[in-house]
Amino acid sequence: MTDFFKGIAPIRHEGPETANEFAFRHYNPDEIVLGKRMEDHLRFAVAYWHSFAWPGGDPFGGQTFDRPWFGDTMDLARMKADVAFEMFDILGQPFYCFHDADVRPEGATFAESKRNLDEIVDYLGQKQEAHKARLLWGTANLFSHRRFMAGAATNPDPDVYAYAAATVKANMDATHRLGGQNYVLWGGREGYETLLNTDLKAERQHAGRFLQQVVEYKHKIGFKGAILIEPKPQEPSKHQYDYDVATVYGFLVEFGLEKEVKVNIEQGHAILAGHSFEHEIALAASLGIFGSIDMNRNDYQSGWDTDQFPNNHAEKALAFYEILRAGGYTTGGTNFDAKLRRQSLDAEDLILAHVGGMDTCARALKCAAALLESGELEAARKARYAGWDTPAAKAMLVGTLEQAAARVTAEGIEPEPRSGRQERLENLWNRYL
Amino acid sequence: MTDFFKGIAPIRHEGPETANEFAFRHYNPDEIVLGKRMEDHLRFAVAYWHSFAWPGGDPFGGQTFDRPWFGDTMDLARMKADVAFEMFDILGQPFYCFHDADVRPEGATFAESKRNLDEIVDYLGQKQEAHKARLLWGTANLFSHRRFMAGAATNPDPDVYAYAAATVKANMDATHRLGGQNYVLWGGREGYETLLNTDLKAERQHAGRFLQQVVEYKHKIGFKGAILIEPKPQEPSKHQYDYDVATVYGFLVEFGLEKEVKVNIEQGHAILAGHSFEHEIALAASLGIFGSIDMNRNDYQSGWDTDQFPNNHAEKALAFYEILRAGGYTTGGTNFDAKLRRQSLDAEDLILAHVGGMDTCARALKCAAALLESGELEAARKARYAGWDTPAAKAMLVGTLEQAAARVTAEGIEPEPRSGRQERLENLWNRYL
Amino acid sequence: MTDFFKGIAPIRHEGPETANEFAFRHYNPDEIVLGKRMEDHLRFAVAYWHSFAWPGGDPFGGQTFDRPWFGDTMDLARMKADVAFEMFDILGQPFYCFHDADVRPEGATFAESKRNLDEIVDYLGQKQEAHKARLLWGTANLFSHRRFMAGAATNPDPDVYAYAAATVKANMDATHRLGGQNYVLWGGREGYETLLNTDLKAERQHAGRFLQQVVEYKHKIGFKGAILIEPKPQEPSKHQYDYDVATVYGFLVEFGLEKEVKVNIEQGHAILAGHSFEHEIALAASLGIFGSIDMNRNDYQSGWDTDQFPNNHAEKALAFYEILRAGGYTTGGTNFDAKLRRQSLDAEDLILAHVGGMDTCARALKCAAALLESGELEAARKARYAGWDTPAAKAMLVGTLEQAAARVTAEGIEPEPRSGRQERLENLWNRYL
Amino acid sequence: MTDFFKGIAPIRHEGPETANEFAFRHYNPDEIVLGKRMEDHLRFAVAYWHSFAWPGGDPFGGQTFDRPWFGDTMDLARMKADVAFEMFDILGQPFYCFHDADVRPEGATFAESKRNLDEIVDYLGQKQEAHKARLLWGTANLFSHRRFMAGAATNPDPDVYAYAAATVKANMDATHRLGGQNYVLWGGREGYETLLNTDLKAERQHAGRFLQQVVEYKHKIGFKGAILIEPKPQEPSKHQYDYDVATVYGFLVEFGLEKEVKVNIEQGHAILAGHSFEHEIALAASLGIFGSIDMNRNDYQSGWDTDQFPNNHAEKALAFYEILRAGGYTTGGTNFDAKLRRQSLDAEDLILAHVGGMDTCARALKCAAALLESGELEAARKARYAGWDTPAAKAMLVGTLEQAAARVTAEGIEPEPRSGRQERLENLWNRYL
Repeated sequence: MTDFFKGIAPIRHEGPETANEFAFRHYNPDEIVLGKRMEDHLRFAVAYWHSFAWPGGDPFGGQTFDRPWFGDTMDLARMKADVAFEMFDILGQPFYCFHDADVRPEGATFAESKRNLDEIVDYLGQKQEAHKARLLWGTANLFSHRRFMAGAATNPDPDVYAYAAATVKANMDATHRLGGQNYVLWGGREGYETLLNTDLKAERQHAGRFLQQVVEYKHKIGFKGAILIEPKPQEPSKHQYDYDVATVYGFLVEFGLEKEVKVNIEQGHAILAGHSFEHEIALAASLGIFGSIDMNRNDYQSGWDTDQFPNNHAEKALAFYEILRAGGYTTGGTNFDAKLRRQSLDAEDLILAHVGGMDTCARALKCAAALLESGELEAARKARYAGWDTPAAKAMLVGTLEQAAARVTAEGIEPEPRSGRQERLENLWNRYL
Repeated sequence: MTDFFKGIAPIRHEGPETANEFAFRHYNPDEIVLGKRMEDHLRFAVAYWHSFAWPGGDPFGGQTFDRPWFGDTMDLARMKADVAFEMFDILGQPFYCFHDADVRPEGATFAESKRNLDEIVDYLGQKQEAHKARLLWGTANLFSHRRFMAGAATNPDPDVYAYAAATVKANMDATHRLGGQNYVLWGGREGYETLLNTDLKAERQHAGRFLQQVVEYKHKIGFKGAILIEPKPQEPSKHQYDYDVATVYGFLVEFGLEKEVKVNIEQGHAILAGHSFEHEIALAASLGIFGSIDMNRNDYQSGWDTDQFPNNHAEKALAFYEILRAGGYTTGGTNFDAKLRRQSLDAEDLILAHVGGMDTCARALKCAAALLESGELEAARKARYAGWDTPAAKAMLVGTLEQAAARVTAEGIEPEPRSGRQERLENLWNRYL
Repeated sequence: MTDFFKGIAPIRHEGPETANEFAFRHYNPDEIVLGKRMEDHLRFAVAYWHSFAWPGGDPFGGQTFDRPWFGDTMDLARMKADVAFEMFDILGQPFYCFHDADVRPEGATFAESKRNLDEIVDYLGQKQEAHKARLLWGTANLFSHRRFMAGAATNPDPDVYAYAAATVKANMDATHRLGGQNYVLWGGREGYETLLNTDLKAERQHAGRFLQQVVEYKHKIGFKGAILIEPKPQEPSKHQYDYDVATVYGFLVEFGLEKEVKVNIEQGHAILAGHSFEHEIALAASLGIFGSIDMNRNDYQSGWDTDQFPNNHAEKALAFYEILRAGGYTTGGTNFDAKLRRQSLDAEDLILAHVGGMDTCARALKCAAALLESGELEAARKARYAGWDTPAAKAMLVGTLEQAAARVTAEGIEPEPRSGRQERLENLWNRYL
Repeated sequence: MTDFFKGIAPIRHEGPETANEFAFRHYNPDEIVLGKRMEDHLRFAVAYWHSFAWPGGDPFGGQTFDRPWFGDTMDLARMKADVAFEMFDILGQPFYCFHDADVRPEGATFAESKRNLDEIVDYLGQKQEAHKARLLWGTANLFSHRRFMAGAATNPDPDVYAYAAATVKANMDATHRLGGQNYVLWGGREGYETLLNTDLKAERQHAGRFLQQVVEYKHKIGFKGAILIEPKPQEPSKHQYDYDVATVYGFLVEFGLEKEVKVNIEQGHAILAGHSFEHEIALAASLGIFGSIDMNRNDYQSGWDTDQFPNNHAEKALAFYEILRAGGYTTGGTNFDAKLRRQSLDAEDLILAHVGGMDTCARALKCAAALLESGELEAARKARYAGWDTPAAKAMLVGTLEQAAARVTAEGIEPEPRSGRQERLENLWNRYL
């Protein structure tokens, strides 16, 4: 046991009225919501990178956090894992996620990096056996090291493609070994800084082929989890190929992968792409590619990814409503891809930020579930489209443009619009918040 | 002859040094650029709606323009057409574009609207015979009338779907009759205001089927032009399904239309979607769906579509470079989907805004052509990706993830990044501007 | 009595558990919050323009609302007033607001417009006597008519300045006559479309002098209400001089008006200027110029002013907290500068949108009041700045740079940062939501 | 001599037709523009931080640049200075700028940091004697070290205020010693991350008093240069108090400093605040606080400060036109606050990025000067406002609201709008580009 969280007991549910900061007010793992335990609905995961690897820097300043495990040795990497699992025990969340770069020191060569990863994966495996938390997903960091500055699979240098392949393979193996439920690819530098030096077509072809190879390898090793793409429009790249859910869908169909790959949707990324979080979830669900979410909030006044812990249940309820409508997660979960503000220096901040985030999500889930259970919103939606249930309407979709057109004259159609009732539906929502 | 443009003679090319406002400084239709007449490269079109139908209103104020043809009679519609062709004669551009609602008064019934359209199409046909300008594309206005307030093909009311079908059929027929080279669909209200009252999946299915019907009808009537979708992310709708080029591509593939439908890309829409104009063109070209452009500029400080005449050739040159790289237009063209500022009240403003826009584009084209002809940028691009020309690199794309990964250890690959040289390439550009 | 709202009874408070759409769940006018009636805290006002004058148009479509009072006669203007006061009776809110253009038809001349205004003001005066609603503020519409297309007080044409003066005088007189509690100026076109044709310095001088004249006239007629400027960064103008609260403050100080004029802050305008609503309120309060608010919400994914009814109490609570900290309104109030979505066609929509908005605000107020009363947040804030209560710290502000600097060496100061505790404070907030 | 720029000769002007990358095409220091040498107009400065101190990191990746002088020793700091002056000799620009943190290693204590600074300032002084480049401005880095994470003058901890005072004093002394022509304050963390933990009023008071102390100290030591505030709306802070020029002006007036302090305007910051660069310059000039500029470009599709080298002379010409109209710089200059893209690894990139930036500015200056000299735009502007030259118009500004109002009836004023001619003026611009 390290003493980083000394004096902080496991967080328990005490109900909405508690004034105890170190208690859940809404998250109650065993509470049944729509016939399922809340823990099984939410499937929370802690992100290793933000909580244990990020030093608190931003583009205008360096490290603010003092963490005893910061440094580049295997001993420190093990201490980091010890502290991580201590936090997991305190929070009681069922999952965590990592990139290779979060858990092991970079080696001088690929072989050394790989050895470091293998060792730490062994150690994480031991931790998993002794603790509750399991791996929701693993992923490779293909963006921080300078070798990836111009992309990984889309790099102009084929050696980097090879290096990326070796790195992803190593991380898929590690994820598989740890029983991870998904494998994620976020292409932070799969894009460009300027079109002037970019072969857009070749890069997209390489990215597509790379993803096919990943899927083929998944099947080869018998990995049963989902392969997930995480869309983001930009940052760090000026333009990133996996811009948003609709873009990723087009990409998957182009490369024959729409049945093989799903999306991991992040709220902050949705906002940067000009969408609401719930839009991206609803769209993915309607396209059959909804996988998992990266939960955070973005500051609407900041033009970059702020990755803050969620704190507005009214907003998140819209997202969970779409997740519930889609049938909930299968292999996916609610990963807190959220980081402390860099001024939040203390161990308590790290715990309480997660407590607040978990409570926000739990409250949002309960609101969404209650509304879904009531059927009130779905009844209103159904009523609005009821005209499409008629045989004549269905026939129009089967027939030709002329046949549809002919109805106008034949039936003297002059459509009279009906109220969309948006404000009334918003009021309905508020009854459940 | 009306006297709206009284005293304004046809615009002639006088060269860069002229101080005559009423002359072209760069646009010289017969000048040969990359082996083709400038007019045939640029294929300029005037947009009927902005120049002849828009009264100058904005969300906070009404009509500013006094135009003798404003009103709802067929006589005024003919006067509008007369003035339009007088302007086309003055500018000498080869094409124009229209929506039904721009050219004919709305009738009390569909039949009357249709009759009005047919009559005015006859009149436009006569005008075409007597003048140079031809129809680049026709389109249906499926967004202004209140019947379309909740969408056309995606309306919750199937009667509106029928009405849209009848309207599009009428406009396709009209376009075909006038020898139009393309037919465009812009789904300004094919989207939603709130997810709360929206069946996203059904609406997208209806939109997809509608587009299939359009394509089937095109073939039935033997229309040889291209069917074009015009992407826009939002405005008027909060979310529009045809968000951007990548989104449209996914949509086309989903409905088996990627060989049948191309895109009409507008600069302002690209910007609203978070892209550069040249990105959208380059992406469409790489996906094989580049069709035509709506030329304008957006104000980067305004969060809505400002549809201003282009006035920065340095910026537009990047767009024309991508168009030239893609082989130029086939049926497409450069349509000025640009409107006067509402304070630009005079007939002269209307002429000179187009003159400035045409000159900006012509200058941009010449710069882009010179750079492309020099081969300097393409050589730099090719050099950057030269590694992919090796057999080993090509083999990686054919092989498996493990095979690619194995190279790292076998060959001791530790990639050393090379400069992307962005600023040098930007300097190179500036040599040609 | 008109029958526009036939069958809709006055809205009563039924408490959070009610499922009755036509009831308040949170707004309970007589409920005491922090020692004051809720009605007296919130001071709700209905905006005449959005609710009774706006036809439902947007930049891509025209009228959607069918209202029996639409038209340009005095009879219709009186019917509009009848309906308005019927709605005020149903909602029970204490105030309303109007522009001249909302309540009377535009005349063919200034004199006729003025006569129309005087007549309708008489009529509104009678309505006020017979009903509860009073005038929160009046204002002049100096942006819709084409004469104002290039600004009012900042117009290049001094005749327009005169016309604006006459119009504002008429509206101040009307507001005074109706016992209005404030007079508002929103300079929607006091700005520019392009710097190329603008004399920025002269325009700002004219705007400043105009505002001085307004203040002088207020004193002359003995109007006791507040003069309020409403900041907005842009739209309709590309740039508006009253960009945000900080800009307005600088403008007021430049013209010696910072004790005479306050601000009317709108959430949507705050967002367009890159701020949060609560920021603008807190800043205005700290500068001593907080006056009133225009309550609405903007869609964060839309780059224009969407003026939607507020529906997220968690977000609004932050605003009301700042209002309460500032001591609450004096002459100001909570004006719903919010419009129905243009698809919300029915009379019920108009009522229920306001009911939802009032409930959202009432709930937000109660949350904010409870947190303020608890003192928990203020204690945390005070503790963070406690260092500044020491004599040494205070002395530093009085002394010189060298004296402050000298302390570093003398006392060996090497500051150690302390956690900002942002997430913990956000959790605290959530306990009160 | 280091060998970092080995083989790169001083850059000479060769004219627009040269194909030599290592030559100026437009920047010709001795060429006379509007009666003044181009060098004296442009007063270029190189920014030490971006060119010599920044390692190439971004929020998702670390160092990409290999520079022999990276490290924390005084020897390396001297090598950095050697390389810097070698670059200055190659470019021939007259000025450079620095923060303390750019030029010296941070010490373990304030005293050690100060000692390091003094030593390196001596060294820079020697370099200045042996080379052409002089100090345009110095500044203190009050944002990178964790002690400043919650602000400098606005820190909740008064010890940090003292530390900031000591740091600024040291930097003002250093700037004075090196003959710097200005001293700049950029308050990157003078703002807040969340209002919840912020005493906005106290922080602004502290910032105001600090600035007064700076001005007092300037006078005490006889520093003749200008004190400059650099506005930026946000980043790194969520909100920065020096939001934009208008905000800074209000702040200066509040603290009685509007005659003492001017602004250093950066294009990227203007854009983040929702303004054009030329707007901020024109506004500052009209308020009498224009000082200097930080020249770069921002990517309009990225929501953060991209600090790229300028490459669009058409855009920059608008800025230089406003600078020329304002009479040009006095103590100010054109500082390249621009950084290489992190993929631009080579020494050549560093040189050529500056060459391109200098050429872009020189070309822009020449265009702006030619238009100003022609008088065409100013004549159009003057004509538009000619009405204000009449005695009646001038009298209105002196008189009362009623007097202005009375003219409307007395003279039967019904203003008829006149065209704003925006597109024609844009065409005029293009004639000079």
